[in-house]
Amino acid sequence: MRASLKDLKNAVNQVKLLKKDPGNEVKLKLYALYKQATEGPCNMPKPGVFDLINKAKWEAWNALGSLPEETARQNYVDLVSSLSSSSESSSQVKPGADKEHAGYGTLVVTSEDGITKIMLNRPTRKNAISTQMYQEIILALKAASQDDSAITVLTGNGDFYCSGNDLTNVTDTPLGGIEEKAKNSTNLLRDFVASFIDFPKPLIAVVNGPAVGIAVTLLGLFDIVYASDRATFHTPFSHLGLSPEGCSSYTFPKIMGPTKATEMLTFGKKLTAREACAQGLVTEVFPDATFQKEVWTRLTAYAKLPSNVLRISKQVIRSMEKEKLHSVNVEESSIVQERFLSKESMNAVMNFLSKRAKL
Amino acid sequence: MRASLKDLKNAVNQVKLLKKDPGNEVKLKLYALYKQATEGPCNMPKPGVFDLINKAKWEAWNALGSLPEETARQNYVDLVSSLSSSSESSSQVKPGADKEHAGYGTLVVTSEDGITKIMLNRPTRKNAISTQMYQEIILALKAASQDDSAITVLTGNGDFYCSGNDLTNVTDTPLGGIEEKAKNSTNLLRDFVASFIDFPKPLIAVVNGPAVGIAVTLLGLFDIVYASDRATFHTPFSHLGLSPEGCSSYTFPKIMGPTKATEMLTFGKKLTAREACAQGLVTEVFPDATFQKEVWTRLTAYAKLPSNVLRISKQVIRSMEKEKLHSVNVEESSIVQERFLSKESMNAVMNFLSKRAKL
Amino acid sequence: MRASLKDLKNAVNQVKLLKKDPGNEVKLKLYALYKQATEGPCNMPKPGVFDLINKAKWEAWNALGSLPEETARQNYVDLVSSLSSSSESSSQVKPGADKEHAGYGTLVVTSEDGITKIMLNRPTRKNAISTQMYQEIILALKAASQDDSAITVLTGNGDFYCSGNDLTNVTDTPLGGIEEKAKNSTNLLRDFVASFIDFPKPLIAVVNGPAVGIAVTLLGLFDIVYASDRATFHTPFSHLGLSPEGCSSYTFPKIMGPTKATEMLTFGKKLTAREACAQGLVTEVFPDATFQKEVWTRLTAYAKLPSNVLRISKQVIRSMEKEKLHSVNVEESSIVQERFLSKESMNAVMNFLSKRAKL
Repeated sequence: MRASLKDLKNAVNQVKLLKKDPGNEVKLKLYALYKQATEGPCNMPKPGVFDLINKAKWEAWNALGSLPEETARQNYVDLVSSLSSSSESSSQVKPGADKEHAGYGTLVVTSEDGITKIMLNRPTRKNAISTQMYQEIILALKAASQDDSAITVLTGNGDFYCSGNDLTNVTDTPLGGIEEKAKNSTNLLRDFVASFIDFPKPLIAVVNGPAVGIAVTLLGLFDIVYASDRATFHTPFSHLGLSPEGCSSYTFPKIMGPTKATEMLTFGKKLTAREACAQGLVTEVFPDATFQKEVWTRLTAYAKLPSNVLRISKQVIRSMEKEKLHSVNVEESSIVQERFLSKESMNAVMNFLSKRAKL
Repeated sequence: MRASLKDLKNAVNQVKLLKKDPGNEVKLKLYALYKQATEGPCNMPKPGVFDLINKAKWEAWNALGSLPEETARQNYVDLVSSLSSSSESSSQVKPGADKEHAGYGTLVVTSEDGITKIMLNRPTRKNAISTQMYQEIILALKAASQDDSAITVLTGNGDFYCSGNDLTNVTDTPLGGIEEKAKNSTNLLRDFVASFIDFPKPLIAVVNGPAVGIAVTLLGLFDIVYASDRATFHTPFSHLGLSPEGCSSYTFPKIMGPTKATEMLTFGKKLTAREACAQGLVTEVFPDATFQKEVWTRLTAYAKLPSNVLRISKQVIRSMEKEKLHSVNVEESSIVQERFLSKESMNAVMNFLSKRAKL
Repeated sequence: MRASLKDLKNAVNQVKLLKKDPGNEVKLKLYALYKQATEGPCNMPKPGVFDLINKAKWEAWNALGSLPEETARQNYVDLVSSLSSSSESSSQVKPGADKEHAGYGTLVVTSEDGITKIMLNRPTRKNAISTQMYQEIILALKAASQDDSAITVLTGNGDFYCSGNDLTNVTDTPLGGIEEKAKNSTNLLRDFVASFIDFPKPLIAVVNGPAVGIAVTLLGLFDIVYASDRATFHTPFSHLGLSPEGCSSYTFPKIMGPTKATEMLTFGKKLTAREACAQGLVTEVFPDATFQKEVWTRLTAYAKLPSNVLRISKQVIRSMEKEKLHSVNVEESSIVQERFLSKESMNAVMNFLSKRAKL
């Protein structure tokens, strides 16, 4: 089913209704696809070197080569569709729970029985981590490290644990352009990962469903990982032109040996929960039907141990690696930043967004 | 079945028969429990700051708050019972074996067919490691490192491999008080662990039954670990207010990944022999019925390899970690020393001893 | 079936037909065995200290002690037999394949579909690594690192993956004598291992059958290891008086924990493919009947990922260990060099060659 001319016209109107500026890179992409869809291959003379804006437009259009008009039309419609869904409201916090922490837009944070629970709460987006969610998780971990709970749990609301980095983050380009975007994104990624490295109490992942990308790589920094047998573990970095992060280039070979780590991190092999457990990434797998009950029974018992004893035990086990993990994080982030600006990555992300919009 | 007044009177007499001074801390505990059992909650005016002895007594009694008299009586009887059993004679060495090394009170050490076997020999105490046994194991390893055997084996006499640190060691307080006790104990612990780190020949654990605490953590320093399927592996450090030792904070995450290590070391999860094998802590598990036969057949074959080749092979595999292991040992021991003096630990140990006495 | 006098005479003639000088050490061994076989125990007066040649001969003969004449005769025949087979031609390259790289005598190297395949091609010698093969693998890896393939595969032609170091290399002694031989061999070994450490693209082992010695230890430097269920993994270093190499003293404890590593590397335990997979040395095991088909289907898909992304991903995962691996390699090689000159090793190798000749 290809996009019709009417679909194109609707999409053009939809762009005007976007709540958020999609950023210059996306605007150029939209411009180019529209020109290609309506006028065919670039027929504009190349602007002079100082006519920056028209030159950028020309380059974007010209880059589409001889892309057929129907395809350009379809891609335009898909791109707009992905932009619309990415700017939907995500304020789905259930208000009013007894010990709920207020003020989070993408999380539900509660404290009870010595356990602080941070629940990713964008179920309709498979708990993809938006820029806002990155920032809020950093804040929630900071708060949990200082409250009086014994242990802290990260889990997801709905069918997914977390589908990883929200790729529509990429379309949210600042005025400084794609370079500044890449820099901001990787600085945020680095600080986000650092807040897991430094977390001083036992940190437990309750993996209720599929986990993708950074939601998987971070598991190497957790102290316990319990998974439903519905969970899967997938890091398609190479398919997106990207490279491993979350300290996984260090923790995964250590946990599962270098060859099983490479099959996951370099070649994007997806693991079942049982495979991930056999390889040491997951501590224990439970049948989905009894997952929540069994896990929370166990965690409630664990949380009764004296909180300062747990904190000291974690410190003894983890402290000697902290410095190393921080340096790995800095190194990985710097390579991700370069990757982010590579053609492989830009094309792969745009394709991913287009495909997803189509489905 | 609660302790009667007669039980209390018997216990008071039993204290006088103890072969060893139980130390000031225990004496204060006994004083307090006796007063509580016979006079109820502390009714003495608080002594002045310079009346050191009476102040210590007052504090001990006062700390019992409104503990019922019957409970205090029971605790007194239990505590005395545990003290009595800890000062029982432990000279159970079977004399007269052909190549038996003389002079050990808590071990049976033999050499045959290129194998030196160090057997923990306090079966009635589940081979708990008393201060004397710590010292004798250090000496036995030193001797074994210099004899002409190819490999050295550590195993236990009776149903248990080793129930870990003998907590009644704690009641043996020197004149310098609890601080000096903590310092002496952790220095001994540190030297004990160091003698495993430095042992120059293949060191094999033949785990004939349950292993607890330091008997488990040390396994990360062995070169081979064979276990009966009756064996279990349990490190309830947090439950005793303590922190991991024996270099386990370094070796366990390396062997089984950080999350399985944390569930054992921080949350005290007990593993079966098969689980410990799946996680790499145990090399191979054998049915208990054929355990001794199968293991010794294999070890006898291994011991026929040239002893200097085995020594060099171990050196190649282990030497690069030695420095790291020693620094981990020093760090862990220093944290254990602090923990040892903590309220969580003191209370947990006292509760453990009381409970055990009751059973 | 013992060697007859006629067998001895034939063997003496065969020595004259050897294409390559077997080296001084072997010549001395042949001299001594011949004398023992024909005249019995050494009856020559010991030469003076400056009569170097006769002294060497005397020592070789005298070292045989009271070895029975029949045994000496048999050993002579076996030794000559092993020398003859080691100097057989090994130019078995199938010529004419479309993208085959020319110029290798012991390998078949082909490039197709983004995959460079290096196939060990001495099937009648179980793909044992001769001096020539060591050198050619170094060259083939260098070429593969610079071609436009995405991934590189190492595999074996015939029933074996690789039977390890060709021990008949040892009999190829240069004029400088056994010390120079030991130095040259270990320098070659060190450079060979270094070329695996430095290889910049994903390197995949397709283990089609049994693997022995260095063919096993090197697997810790591969990025993926696929094995047929016919494959076995065996490192009988101690039995040959040698010590671990290929960085295995570092990679194996990291991959499988120290005790399982020790049972393999120090005590020569042979693993099945499934055991090696359970311990993380092998990434996945396939039934032999479908091995080639399943593996190449998967590899062809992997090789379609962008080659520079794969290269960067490998760099992120492996770069932080490179320095460490090189220092381990240097250290291991230096100890192997000492071992190589030890009596345990010389005798074990000679026994191995004699035994093999007998079979």
